[in-house]
Amino acid sequence: MSRLVLAFDLGGTNVRCGVLNEQSEILARAKTSVGSRPKPEEAVRKMKDIAQEALTQLGKQTADLACIGIGSPGPLNSQSGIVFETPNLGWKNVPLAQLLGNALGRPTFLENDAVSACWGEFVKGAGRGTQTMFILTLGTGVGGGLIIGGKVWKGPDDIAGHLGHMIVEPHGPTQVFDNPGSVEALCSATACIKQAKAAAYSNPESLLAKLPPDQITGAYVNECADKGDQPALDIFTRIGTYLGVACASIANALNPELGVVGGGLAAAGDKIMLPLRKELLRRALPAAGQRLRMELAQLGDDAGIVGVAGLALQRLDGKL
Amino acid sequence: MSRLVLAFDLGGTNVRCGVLNEQSEILARAKTSVGSRPKPEEAVRKMKDIAQEALTQLGKQTADLACIGIGSPGPLNSQSGIVFETPNLGWKNVPLAQLLGNALGRPTFLENDAVSACWGEFVKGAGRGTQTMFILTLGTGVGGGLIIGGKVWKGPDDIAGHLGHMIVEPHGPTQVFDNPGSVEALCSATACIKQAKAAAYSNPESLLAKLPPDQITGAYVNECADKGDQPALDIFTRIGTYLGVACASIANALNPELGVVGGGLAAAGDKIMLPLRKELLRRALPAAGQRLRMELAQLGDDAGIVGVAGLALQRLDGKL
Repeated sequence: MSRLVLAFDLGGTNVRCGVLNEQSEILARAKTSVGSRPKPEEAVRKMKDIAQEALTQLGKQTADLACIGIGSPGPLNSQSGIVFETPNLGWKNVPLAQLLGNALGRPTFLENDAVSACWGEFVKGAGRGTQTMFILTLGTGVGGGLIIGGKVWKGPDDIAGHLGHMIVEPHGPTQVFDNPGSVEALCSATACIKQAKAAAYSNPESLLAKLPPDQITGAYVNECADKGDQPALDIFTRIGTYLGVACASIANALNPELGVVGGGLAAAGDKIMLPLRKELLRRALPAAGQRLRMELAQLGDDAGIVGVAGLALQRLDGKL
Repeated sequence: MSRLVLAFDLGGTNVRCGVLNEQSEILARAKTSVGSRPKPEEAVRKMKDIAQEALTQLGKQTADLACIGIGSPGPLNSQSGIVFETPNLGWKNVPLAQLLGNALGRPTFLENDAVSACWGEFVKGAGRGTQTMFILTLGTGVGGGLIIGGKVWKGPDDIAGHLGHMIVEPHGPTQVFDNPGSVEALCSATACIKQAKAAAYSNPESLLAKLPPDQITGAYVNECADKGDQPALDIFTRIGTYLGVACASIANALNPELGVVGGGLAAAGDKIMLPLRKELLRRALPAAGQRLRMELAQLGDDAGIVGVAGLALQRLDGKL
């Protein structure tokens, strides 16, 4: 009989959960808002509530679960189960795996959200049939994950796969810490919005200038670009080109078969992917560039839940 | 009884060979000049000659060899044994493993020279005791090699590990092909000499300007720097800083334990390594930067021979 896994995807304001079988099928779902900057105990109580809701749909209870997985924004340590810091939730050094594990009474494993999404795409999405792939998730930051030879690669300190902190423009802007010109500082939704505000200021005729600067979002920049607004289109071309620089470095270093672009900003689609592929092919060694297929994520919001369920089972079985 | 391996290190004008046991000990050596732009058949004849010379020292013959390894500059394909192009030797599409294997009558395996040096340092040099490491060899180009979890990582197309083609300055100079600002274009001996010529031109009082431009070598730039010449010192600081950018990208992506800097330009030592480590620590995620120990290569000219002997045995045993 297939084992059941409870999987959580912790976002900035929402938390979603699913109950999955070993074939990575989502059998039941539930979600809730955790509100703005909740206390960890409060968030854990709400996570317990939606777990019950999803289990009830299946006529199951927590005792029927093999284990529990949580995909969370980081930085975090997946071995200790501690979330070091989540700026959106306002948490610092929260032993999330232990808190939730105690509340639900089943073995509970914590994973980085982008690593979870990478594994989700690998087993059920764009990565099916590959052995070596990576993901870049374009959100508030740029998350990353890496699968080498069919296995998630985390490195000795659980810190590998942070592809959003690779450098593409050494004298470029900074985002979170002193690493100027990282992928994150140039290609995140945060960076996109910053660039849009600057473009609105210097191009008053642009659609970008029709909104007050503090109301500009990545989705709005995308909307302007779809209406043919050149300054908005230029922003996505620049983001795609810098992503292409990063992907060329990854291609020449690792020779992966697939790179997946996900996260909210991936809604810009070909406006990012076309310049990305062009820059990649220009810069990669021919065999590496021809091998590396770049695709948009396919599972949307489900990638994290599907992925962390699979990773939690691997950890339960001592395979990760 | 320990098996014997014959290992070759093919350089720009010299070829060296060694006979090694399974403990990676070099039991006999020989070397010769292959001259300028030799025909492949002529080079293979000379390789056969020095093989006989080394075997004779041990009272052995080719029939006593388990296999043969050749470390060669690339690009090449280690599976087919074909060297696609070696600008220094003037070769194009030479089936080197087959030519030498036919001449000596033993199974013969071809490997990239930097990958060979990486494996050599891993088993007998700076990398002893590590599981995940990389090498950057600063020569005419910048070679690279990558060991992940105790195994050489080559990727599906035998092209992984080309860390010299990672990008550190997207609007920088080009070297061999259209990938501006690669590590190779900024940190190779070739790039060092270019920078020295430019510095000599704009700083006529510099020691760099005491030689005719076409006589400047990496070794001469190092000599000038050791005498305190500021323009020469600045060149190594710039090279070290760009290497630090590349190593920070590698640290954040792969979380390796060790990075080794080898090749002729590594003779500059701390003049490169100090700015390298500073830039690395600035840019890497703290856990990744603290983990990544950056060291000079320890085996010198022996790294390639030691490494390719080990890789050839792995391939003979179907483990690579």
